[in-house]
Amino acid sequence: MAYGEVDQLAINTIRCLATPTSPEGSVNQETKHHPNIATQHRKEFNRLTGLSIQIDATFKANSGHPGAPMGMAPISHVLFNKFMRFNPKNPGWVNRDRFVLSNGHGCMLQYALLHLFGYELSMDDLKNFRHIDSITPGHPEAHDTPGIEVTTGPLGQGFANAVGLAVAQAHTAGVFNKPGYDLINNYTYCFFGDGCAMEGIASEAASAAGHLQLGNLIMIYDDNHISIDGDTKCAFTEDVLKRFEAYGWHTQHVEQGDTDLEGMEAAIKKAQEVKDKPSVIKLTTTIGYGSKLQGTGGVHGNPLKEDDILQVKKKFGFNPEETFVVPQEVYDMYHKHASEGAAAEQEWNKLFEKYSGEYKDLAADLSRRLTGKLPEGWQNKLPTYKPSDPAIASRKLSESVLEAIYDVVPELVSGSADLTGSNNTRWKSAVDFQPPSTGIGEWSGRYMRYGVREHAMAAMMNGMSAYGTIIPAGGTFLNFVSYAAGAVRLSSLSHQRVIYVATHDSIGLGEDGPTHQPIETLAHFRALPNMMVWRPADGNETSAAYYVALTSHETPSILALTRQNLPQLEGSTLEKAIKGGYVALEDKNAQITLVSTGSEVSLCLEAVKYLKDNQGITARVVSMPCVEVFDAQDKDYRLSVIPDGIPSMSVEVMSTLGWEKYSHEQFGLNRFGASGAYKDVYKKFEFTPEGIAKRAAATVDFYKDVKPLRSPINRAFLQLI
Amino acid sequence: MAYGEVDQLAINTIRCLATPTSPEGSVNQETKHHPNIATQHRKEFNRLTGLSIQIDATFKANSGHPGAPMGMAPISHVLFNKFMRFNPKNPGWVNRDRFVLSNGHGCMLQYALLHLFGYELSMDDLKNFRHIDSITPGHPEAHDTPGIEVTTGPLGQGFANAVGLAVAQAHTAGVFNKPGYDLINNYTYCFFGDGCAMEGIASEAASAAGHLQLGNLIMIYDDNHISIDGDTKCAFTEDVLKRFEAYGWHTQHVEQGDTDLEGMEAAIKKAQEVKDKPSVIKLTTTIGYGSKLQGTGGVHGNPLKEDDILQVKKKFGFNPEETFVVPQEVYDMYHKHASEGAAAEQEWNKLFEKYSGEYKDLAADLSRRLTGKLPEGWQNKLPTYKPSDPAIASRKLSESVLEAIYDVVPELVSGSADLTGSNNTRWKSAVDFQPPSTGIGEWSGRYMRYGVREHAMAAMMNGMSAYGTIIPAGGTFLNFVSYAAGAVRLSSLSHQRVIYVATHDSIGLGEDGPTHQPIETLAHFRALPNMMVWRPADGNETSAAYYVALTSHETPSILALTRQNLPQLEGSTLEKAIKGGYVALEDKNAQITLVSTGSEVSLCLEAVKYLKDNQGITARVVSMPCVEVFDAQDKDYRLSVIPDGIPSMSVEVMSTLGWEKYSHEQFGLNRFGASGAYKDVYKKFEFTPEGIAKRAAATVDFYKDVKPLRSPINRAFLQLI
Repeated sequence: MAYGEVDQLAINTIRCLATPTSPEGSVNQETKHHPNIATQHRKEFNRLTGLSIQIDATFKANSGHPGAPMGMAPISHVLFNKFMRFNPKNPGWVNRDRFVLSNGHGCMLQYALLHLFGYELSMDDLKNFRHIDSITPGHPEAHDTPGIEVTTGPLGQGFANAVGLAVAQAHTAGVFNKPGYDLINNYTYCFFGDGCAMEGIASEAASAAGHLQLGNLIMIYDDNHISIDGDTKCAFTEDVLKRFEAYGWHTQHVEQGDTDLEGMEAAIKKAQEVKDKPSVIKLTTTIGYGSKLQGTGGVHGNPLKEDDILQVKKKFGFNPEETFVVPQEVYDMYHKHASEGAAAEQEWNKLFEKYSGEYKDLAADLSRRLTGKLPEGWQNKLPTYKPSDPAIASRKLSESVLEAIYDVVPELVSGSADLTGSNNTRWKSAVDFQPPSTGIGEWSGRYMRYGVREHAMAAMMNGMSAYGTIIPAGGTFLNFVSYAAGAVRLSSLSHQRVIYVATHDSIGLGEDGPTHQPIETLAHFRALPNMMVWRPADGNETSAAYYVALTSHETPSILALTRQNLPQLEGSTLEKAIKGGYVALEDKNAQITLVSTGSEVSLCLEAVKYLKDNQGITARVVSMPCVEVFDAQDKDYRLSVIPDGIPSMSVEVMSTLGWEKYSHEQFGLNRFGASGAYKDVYKKFEFTPEGIAKRAAATVDFYKDVKPLRSPINRAFLQLI
Repeated sequence: MAYGEVDQLAINTIRCLATPTSPEGSVNQETKHHPNIATQHRKEFNRLTGLSIQIDATFKANSGHPGAPMGMAPISHVLFNKFMRFNPKNPGWVNRDRFVLSNGHGCMLQYALLHLFGYELSMDDLKNFRHIDSITPGHPEAHDTPGIEVTTGPLGQGFANAVGLAVAQAHTAGVFNKPGYDLINNYTYCFFGDGCAMEGIASEAASAAGHLQLGNLIMIYDDNHISIDGDTKCAFTEDVLKRFEAYGWHTQHVEQGDTDLEGMEAAIKKAQEVKDKPSVIKLTTTIGYGSKLQGTGGVHGNPLKEDDILQVKKKFGFNPEETFVVPQEVYDMYHKHASEGAAAEQEWNKLFEKYSGEYKDLAADLSRRLTGKLPEGWQNKLPTYKPSDPAIASRKLSESVLEAIYDVVPELVSGSADLTGSNNTRWKSAVDFQPPSTGIGEWSGRYMRYGVREHAMAAMMNGMSAYGTIIPAGGTFLNFVSYAAGAVRLSSLSHQRVIYVATHDSIGLGEDGPTHQPIETLAHFRALPNMMVWRPADGNETSAAYYVALTSHETPSILALTRQNLPQLEGSTLEKAIKGGYVALEDKNAQITLVSTGSEVSLCLEAVKYLKDNQGITARVVSMPCVEVFDAQDKDYRLSVIPDGIPSMSVEVMSTLGWEKYSHEQFGLNRFGASGAYKDVYKKFEFTPEGIAKRAAATVDFYKDVKPLRSPINRAFLQLI
């Protein structure tokens, strides 16, 4: 527990590297470097001097958040150098300790640490902080920067990601650990601030983590009393630790969070020892200490002013021209810790080799999971259907998929935000993921009871996916995926393979009414980059949705599924459906293409007959379960599905927004729905064969004089992607 | 505190009327009514027999949630009949007590109460529960049903609405109450269940309410240990009361929530006495008591089975054929309470008349606010701009609007989710809405510090708006309006005049990077019915956005505002901009129309020059700050803006989804953004005059052979609205 000069130097170095300070041009970029000054002066270093060279990493950035890194350098040093086990040369080692910076705006802290410990993040990368196409963007992005576990910044997300990482650790340990083989025992550490503590998503995740008794989860709450609006007394006066106690967490308070390195170490040690509860350590710190604005909101989200930088440097005896200095002792100390981590991984590899001899199948399974590839031949288990098979709701079809594949895809972990019986997300033999002490589940259980916590569920799934051994699927009503929008967005941005099982997908849910009937939801998520939105029309399409969702390693999926029964289509096959859109009913003489999804495809097929019988119009039907996957097909194929020469009309019982991309005219619902039996609701809004036919006829008439009548697939220019 | 036979009868009647039970056809709809049987049998009634006629109101509904109404009838009786002050003949009386059923799925409870007390909700309305076009939809909708204060059902919303209603009460009292005139002193009561308690939005709102010391807010927590997935031990084992204590609430527990009417009354009385804290009463109840499935999840969200109904009726000696019975004694008792409410309103009216003599201006202001109309001539204060005025970020332009109008629109209450300095939502002289004991504000303060609680902010604003005396405006980054999506949707559905001040509206925010840069957000909210999404291009358009937002009584608005400076356009005026879209640069010889919004309009104007100089193409420019308002203009006008004969191309630096409705081709950003200086980011994605011109030229070329080339304003058929 003894901390010396080099520890202090390291803390100061982190703080300096990590702190974005100066607006562009407000410091002299021509300044010569005097790399030895820091070491010459280091005798004088102490907790209060650490800010003197904070200008270093970011003197070209014109924005940033200096406060949190200035306050959290000491705890970072203690945590990373005394506790955390990782190998910077292999950031993918499965049993590494995970670290999440939930207050992601302080990411220069994390970038500095990654650099100092020897991750592939160079001094130049630090210099490029917040510059275009750097690997050091304004908030940490998991996909692009080695050593960043999850993408954070949107407040509260990292907190819930950390809970998901801890769930994944506990589950993976439950599945793979054996007597004598404590293979998976890493900790998940997370820093969070007042902003995260105020977010509902963090409350949800904290409540879930307490219930789940996640002993290997250790959070540090940066209690600096400051958020962007200033003192937390303006808006946030609750007793945070008492709240966490109420959730079932182990709580501690380190009062001197600026200086008490020993206290921090003791608290983390104690937290590690508590195995039946997650731990939170409240660390009272001074935001931006040393700045003229220390302890105020002024130092949270704006770079320090030049005069402030100068006074800080002068105050502590530093050369204001010093930039980008890392004393060799600091590199040495941190590289030593890194090499201990590398050695630990070597030890682990030996253990795993021995394990592989004794538990061959399990070892192979773990190795395979870490590649992201599914087991050979798993897809043969996917159910397929004939037109003569009975009509079934797609939420039930989804259940049949899970029932069919759970055994061959062991990394699939399903769950629901308290709608299990409605989402049909649970296979019959599923065991709950629960602390064994509850008597209602096991750590190895593959069914998550997320509670009525949609936002936390989504962010926990992101964390679970990021762990590397799990593919999470989680259910709620489609309308309430919107509650999780903040986390769903990060599923996409951070390339997580997670599956949202979104049932009750339209006014077709009936009596629950407009509060529960999605109108805008599919447009919302279709506009989200790197998201697949599936709305299958029958059993084969539902299987296709799962096939593509599970085999797309870097793209999340939303499966919009019906409450009401759907007939099995004549024209559907799994092979066609995995193209995202296909011709469900062809007619070479067609005068119009009806493009539809989900429950409306069979209505369109009925409308074709009605059109022929009553208006003498010939129509063809395209089923388009996933526009994003359809967009990825070659143009010839897409033009064969939505051809030139005849108009097309989309039919989907929700917002028409975006359907113009695939159709000349759109039949949808640009208003809220209604409470009633679903057939009555469909009828009210004219989603009947007659209602479709009437509009199709108007469309044929409207476009009869346009030459050439191009398919909307033809565009004047391509979009940037 | 004495409760007698009629009280019990009333409870049983509520329970029976309120409980959806039987699937359609599972009971004999031909059953003759025997209206006197209930009274004949009432001697035998007791707490446990109350379920015997629960089939009544909903025998035609094929879905429903019997559990909560069965459990909460006793507390409803105590609360409504012993405490709540309201006049069913005037549901708009400003000082009525407010009631919110946050567990809105139990709404038949509320409908039954409204009926029994004499609101305009007939027995036929009860019979039409969950039927199409009824005023008794599957979840309570404020806009359509008299006596429903806010639209609930999506869990947690009502809880946060109630906090907003209590904020509005405290604020309105702070503004209007005077010595001797305790004009505004109503309570806000709210029921919530385990589902709401798990939702993050409720946690956020509870934390805010504790901070704000909302003494007139009294919540009843229906602690029935059941959610849809079954026993709460599966997922929700925290200590709820301890959590609320941590938030600063006064907490009580009534252990016998099924029977202890005196205990309930005493707890509510005690809660009323606590004036410096919101109160929560945990009421332990048995869900669906009397049913074969009592105390289980089976009785939460599914109607009782016929045999269950029969056994319940038999068990308690009732005629299973009894339907739709309200004993006259119950009507009498409740109508008596209602007439006491009417008398209280009469008293209040007298008080207000006296007040009007003494405080003429205040009285006139309150009366005016309740009409929803703004003060005469307020709009003359809106800033207008000339092209020669300096370039200003639209978030600053928004601040100028607030600064200009706050004095003449006293019902405007601004605020931010902890981004005050970034959202520019606070006029200089604003006083915070805070408990005076904090020393940092007043009840009459008009600036809300919502904390980092976007979702609760939005739902609180819905509640504040629903109170009737406030127009709330609340700020966050546009990207984080998505955190509030669940509540934003209800702003639209329940017709609340709330304003979301959504700054940092695009990749133009620069360095914060993709985690903070909206791509899908505007498409999402444009797809939401009854929502105005404004993205003003300059000062006049920003003023126009506020003008339309403030004068649209039944439609919420999102104002998407820039971080970066925008020049004042040549072609903009307030009068043009309030049409939602207008010609910013006309040219009779134009070969293409560029349709754009916000920060890209001035780029398009630059592109016009570039196109002329480099490609010899003539272009015109349309600024389209609000598509929803543009859609509301007559077709001739819309065609004059986007005419036939030439192609149009949209230019907006985010998802193109939906722009096909106003343009033939779309230039946007269907991928995530990048962290860097905003000009670098714009350049990376070719949002430059050159980048626009290149695509415009391709568009002109692509459409040169199409005849007739129709404006996208022309459609084959109209959408249902």
